[in-house]
Amino acid sequence: MRTGADLAAIRERKPLVHQITNYVVMNETANATLALGALPVMAHAAEEVEEMASVAGALVLNIGTLSQPWIEAMLLAAKAANGAGVPVVLDPVGAGATRLRTDTAKRILDEAEIAVVRGNQAEVATLAGREAEIRGVESISAEPGADLASAAAAQLGCVVSVTGPVDHVSDGERTIGISNGHELLGTVTGTGCMSTAMTGCFLAVAADRPLEAAAEALVAFGVAGEDAAVGAKGPGSFHVALYDALYNLDPATLDSRAKVDG
Amino acid sequence: MRTGADLAAIRERKPLVHQITNYVVMNETANATLALGALPVMAHAAEEVEEMASVAGALVLNIGTLSQPWIEAMLLAAKAANGAGVPVVLDPVGAGATRLRTDTAKRILDEAEIAVVRGNQAEVATLAGREAEIRGVESISAEPGADLASAAAAQLGCVVSVTGPVDHVSDGERTIGISNGHELLGTVTGTGCMSTAMTGCFLAVAADRPLEAAAEALVAFGVAGEDAAVGAKGPGSFHVALYDALYNLDPATLDSRAKVDG
Amino acid sequence: MRTGADLAAIRERKPLVHQITNYVVMNETANATLALGALPVMAHAAEEVEEMASVAGALVLNIGTLSQPWIEAMLLAAKAANGAGVPVVLDPVGAGATRLRTDTAKRILDEAEIAVVRGNQAEVATLAGREAEIRGVESISAEPGADLASAAAAQLGCVVSVTGPVDHVSDGERTIGISNGHELLGTVTGTGCMSTAMTGCFLAVAADRPLEAAAEALVAFGVAGEDAAVGAKGPGSFHVALYDALYNLDPATLDSRAKVDG
Repeated sequence: MRTGADLAAIRERKPLVHQITNYVVMNETANATLALGALPVMAHAAEEVEEMASVAGALVLNIGTLSQPWIEAMLLAAKAANGAGVPVVLDPVGAGATRLRTDTAKRILDEAEIAVVRGNQAEVATLAGREAEIRGVESISAEPGADLASAAAAQLGCVVSVTGPVDHVSDGERTIGISNGHELLGTVTGTGCMSTAMTGCFLAVAADRPLEAAAEALVAFGVAGEDAAVGAKGPGSFHVALYDALYNLDPATLDSRAKVDG
Repeated sequence: MRTGADLAAIRERKPLVHQITNYVVMNETANATLALGALPVMAHAAEEVEEMASVAGALVLNIGTLSQPWIEAMLLAAKAANGAGVPVVLDPVGAGATRLRTDTAKRILDEAEIAVVRGNQAEVATLAGREAEIRGVESISAEPGADLASAAAAQLGCVVSVTGPVDHVSDGERTIGISNGHELLGTVTGTGCMSTAMTGCFLAVAADRPLEAAAEALVAFGVAGEDAAVGAKGPGSFHVALYDALYNLDPATLDSRAKVDG
Repeated sequence: MRTGADLAAIRERKPLVHQITNYVVMNETANATLALGALPVMAHAAEEVEEMASVAGALVLNIGTLSQPWIEAMLLAAKAANGAGVPVVLDPVGAGATRLRTDTAKRILDEAEIAVVRGNQAEVATLAGREAEIRGVESISAEPGADLASAAAAQLGCVVSVTGPVDHVSDGERTIGISNGHELLGTVTGTGCMSTAMTGCFLAVAADRPLEAAAEALVAFGVAGEDAAVGAKGPGSFHVALYDALYNLDPATLDSRAKVDG
């Protein structure tokens, strides 16, 4: 892993990260992307997603507020990205909570090549056909993340990031545990979605190392969460400080702050 | 009224509050819900709203940025919630400003059972067939809120919350005045929508006491507004502090801070 | 130019600024509009946009996250605004990045009367048929802004604002350069969109002086950016302080802080 060097590369190259994401967090993931150093762009019309995805450094799909036209656009964009060699990240928000979400996440995995799936325990377990409990979009599941990430990666044939108190990223062979982060991340909506966007940013500069890119994104985001928690008085001030912290991440010290296992 | 005890119940049970709301405030109402202690979920596709609303603790409908598919989804969700015994809150944003909004609010009230309507003076007056003046989504009306809330509740057959400098909540028989809050709430977009979301949170733990739940929500939100105003330099810093304040509301002292009449 | 006096007029009259804008920045442009002193309203349904636009003080069209129903709504609203004498501002977000965006911006300019176009160099150059390079929605172009603004204004037959490190506003005859602002504005998503919303606010009180209104908006927004940068630790705290700064702009000193040329 070379989180610092890859962060420096993001800031140097400013890759375009095309995001087809949910209404709730669009501003937040755009700002997190920009604060990290990449260029976000949101576009969801069937008429333009192929054109946009083809020139992007990475494509991020997030199913948080689905409807039929958006599903079609995600599939079009993912196939265009696949054709252009652009890596695709999928955030299966709420898979397991409704049939529409479960089916859509599975359909995207089935019809397109996904580099990384980033979800919580319940979402990933649902996609891997394992026991899962979800309330709305909040995971209530308890399977150890390392086992789940590894099994899901083997079954889905891609890198899988399972985030929680400890994050686990696996390609089915190697599994990396990441203990960076702060509990205040759970008090702000969209921080999971932001970590998916961060995954897209790192993939854009390390498409040939998807396991490491996915893990590095969670290290960087977790370290920013730790910095943001200093002096925070609650979710509001923490949320604001999170953008400052992403912007101020120091490539030179980032690797030394990684709490990584595996 | 037992605002503190009901807040403690929200934090203990973490009820799921399904919100079909407008694009402008989705992130804000989700974060306010989370900061208070409940779990927000946004879902608007006809294919999934019935499934989601049926398992929620409360359903919040907000007509702030309508279009036809959203109207249909709101009606489907409201009927599913009614069937499952899930209380429904309606925020008639901009009723009176355009025919689409007035007609949609009336249609929802007509076709589904609504537990609480939360709006400003002009919106509520419009629905109750009284004199109203609205500019965009801002009320310019001047009828005393207590009379309006009481008359509207009697006519609409549900609890009605009329918010303004002083809030009034009525079920047509009893009317409660709430003087908590701060004028900076008027400088941030979506604070009215947030108070509707808070109403959903309290209803989720006190569905059998809708009048009190609606009043308690406005007390809690108003107290948070008072706390947020301390040290605020304008709408930006106030907005941030509002989430911190909701998160830090103390159930033990909340009732003693209520400025309630009636 | 009379930036201070026009800001005072905005706060006195509180004009309604109807915005049909992109999902990413809706909350941000609404809050910026409110902080400045005007009343924002978002409405995009074909069934209500004509009604809303006709009673507004200005209409703001922003093509940042297009889809077919929104394009139709923008055209309906623009024509209704034209019929009612309401000035229209167009923000051609991402023109040049995809055919859909380029074509839509041109179609709006073709079918409706636009008072002011506000864009970055690449967007404006695309519309004026000149050399342009854009990555996502970020301009990479380098043509001097003054020449571009003047040429584009002459060709498009309306006032054109080209924003960048230095902003240039032109009606084809007179060109005004504005050096207010701060580089942190480039680190927050939607600040360009906010400057377009500000343009709508100033146009609402100075519709007969579109060149000055457009320039005044950029002065006011730039001064707010300068104030917000004081003490900011990054994009998050800067973003929050920007709303405070807009709210606290002082009409009495605003003109003396303008860095204007031309």
